[in-house]
Amino acid sequence: MKRYFFFLFVLTALSLSGQGFFSPPVDSPEISKDGAVTFKVKAAGADTVRLIIDTRVDTLMKHTGNETWSITLRDLEPDLYMYYYMVDGMKVLDNENAHTLRDVKSVMNTFVLDPKGDCPMAVHNVPHGEVRAVWYDSPTLNKQRRMMIYLPPGYEQGHQRYPVFYLLHGSGGDETVWLEQGRAAQVFDNLIAEGKAEPMIVVMPNGNVDEQAASNMSAEGNVQPTFAHKNWMDGTFEQSFNDIVTWVDKNYRTRDSKRYRAIAGLSMGGYHSLYISANQPADFAYVGLFSAAIGRMDQGKCTIYDDLEGKLVTQFKQHPRLYWIGIGTDDFLYKDNTAFRQMLDQNRLRYTYHESGAGHEWANWRDYLVIFTQLLFK
Amino acid sequence: MKRYFFFLFVLTALSLSGQGFFSPPVDSPEISKDGAVTFKVKAAGADTVRLIIDTRVDTLMKHTGNETWSITLRDLEPDLYMYYYMVDGMKVLDNENAHTLRDVKSVMNTFVLDPKGDCPMAVHNVPHGEVRAVWYDSPTLNKQRRMMIYLPPGYEQGHQRYPVFYLLHGSGGDETVWLEQGRAAQVFDNLIAEGKAEPMIVVMPNGNVDEQAASNMSAEGNVQPTFAHKNWMDGTFEQSFNDIVTWVDKNYRTRDSKRYRAIAGLSMGGYHSLYISANQPADFAYVGLFSAAIGRMDQGKCTIYDDLEGKLVTQFKQHPRLYWIGIGTDDFLYKDNTAFRQMLDQNRLRYTYHESGAGHEWANWRDYLVIFTQLLFK
Repeated sequence: MKRYFFFLFVLTALSLSGQGFFSPPVDSPEISKDGAVTFKVKAAGADTVRLIIDTRVDTLMKHTGNETWSITLRDLEPDLYMYYYMVDGMKVLDNENAHTLRDVKSVMNTFVLDPKGDCPMAVHNVPHGEVRAVWYDSPTLNKQRRMMIYLPPGYEQGHQRYPVFYLLHGSGGDETVWLEQGRAAQVFDNLIAEGKAEPMIVVMPNGNVDEQAASNMSAEGNVQPTFAHKNWMDGTFEQSFNDIVTWVDKNYRTRDSKRYRAIAGLSMGGYHSLYISANQPADFAYVGLFSAAIGRMDQGKCTIYDDLEGKLVTQFKQHPRLYWIGIGTDDFLYKDNTAFRQMLDQNRLRYTYHESGAGHEWANWRDYLVIFTQLLFK
Repeated sequence: MKRYFFFLFVLTALSLSGQGFFSPPVDSPEISKDGAVTFKVKAAGADTVRLIIDTRVDTLMKHTGNETWSITLRDLEPDLYMYYYMVDGMKVLDNENAHTLRDVKSVMNTFVLDPKGDCPMAVHNVPHGEVRAVWYDSPTLNKQRRMMIYLPPGYEQGHQRYPVFYLLHGSGGDETVWLEQGRAAQVFDNLIAEGKAEPMIVVMPNGNVDEQAASNMSAEGNVQPTFAHKNWMDGTFEQSFNDIVTWVDKNYRTRDSKRYRAIAGLSMGGYHSLYISANQPADFAYVGLFSAAIGRMDQGKCTIYDDLEGKLVTQFKQHPRLYWIGIGTDDFLYKDNTAFRQMLDQNRLRYTYHESGAGHEWANWRDYLVIFTQLLFK
């Protein structure tokens, strides 16, 4: 009976998983101690196989026999990567890598490259904060909405009050994306453990006001993630933002004053951060615009967007402790950010500027998060 | 400038996502109001395309022109489904469906079928509980470990104490799997809202004692999920279990007595639940064995597994309020569960038995969770 049970268990395990039961799993991609990364894919009868790594790599793989294509990359920086294969023009995921993430609607495999153990996006053996998926009522939008909250290590056990960082996603994102593509929990765990960042509460709301939650967590059912949201950048999110701040201050041990409140976001989230902070100059001492969608295309649509220049002058008279602008030189929003900075310069409004390479992409936004977070609440 | 910004934004959005910026997303699969489900896949030059839905469907798709294969299924029950395509023998995911889940190491697309709005696995417009990813110290295992906690709606705002349900995963799973494949948060939200279940705290630990956390959330780096764990079903998890109970009772408003404590699990988690409750008869009033791996193959390995029959007699003398056994008639563990029940019968130990169709699979475990949860703490 014992032998019979075990035999059947193994058979079922094999059929369920397609892998050997007690054979150790193949780790894919293979990462050597010096950080070389080897990708392998089986594709019987294929003519061409390409490896595509987010916006950074697009290369042919070599046929190395036994129906296998392979390539080794040696110059990748420590970071999170997202990749997939194109087999004769068809997108195929890596069946040896169970780890995936999605970018808007596109699912890719993912890995974190951390050969020296110092990549802030990797999980390290440090005290870990808590991540909560919470639902709150938005009276302004008249619905329940979901957001993600990071609480610093020790929050649950202590009585201390903490500053709050509101961290906003871009168009096509939702409340989960800063934790997933952005590796926010790992970044905060690591920076706090190294003493580089103050312990803080981080609030990651959903900036698409027509949805309750990420598309598979909403009562709206079988709906796919999209860029095409109603009330997109029309002032509605900004007008409803105090529902979030009020709920957070009521339910968490926050330091609920401007001095201990930061707001930042990427792309659309930068646009939201710009207008929320300009319209509420008494509320946020730290503002971060990461590749912000500064085009003022919605001027006239909503009073939120009227007279930005006048509002900024008022905001800066109240001395924000940090007004931070980050942009990549290849970003399609580079010129708009330059124009925006010229306007700030003309008004003698002081900001901190960080110019990186590359464009409108997560490799930049993760870096900006690491840099910006170290400047907060000090 | 306005036009220029917008044009570039659209171009980048298109290139990032491969979808139209303002065109609504294609929902895949297409689900009609009467619950018919249509799958479509583009596969240029393919000879055969199959649709595989977990253990329930494996069927050829029809070539419907324009390089597209399609099939409509009309008899699927409301539930969560996981599927993929086989294109000329190569596994391919549905590029029109961004929602994926993994089963051990295998990534599949997923959807929830809820045509009448009454499927307990779907998100409904009811009060939602909170889901927390927390880290705790395990003194017995001498490491930090991660677990998931569900708190019922209103927990954060109130002062009430709640009963606790410890819900354990199977071999190849981890702390995330009951929330993902098991839809636990949705099941508890829905049952509590309908008054069918008591509000309760649900604790979902990681039963693989050699890992800190799910493979992509552990400091061990680029490691793939596996069945092949060290200290697998050798008593170590059971011996360390009180680290979890102690931490939970210390950090949450629990009702910290046997009357308000339940333990249940699937497969290996059923085995864990069996031995933890038998060795700690004063601790759990409710025990659930879902397709439990009852083989006693580890007898002799650890005192935890010695004299099960004698321990059960002692346990039942202390009157558990519910001892629940669920198994499918096609499960490879059916005979072992039958033998176990015969042993209980011979000792006149009273249990509740639920026999379903099908085998060792999530469709059963989600059903068992719905049934078992309604019997708790009443």
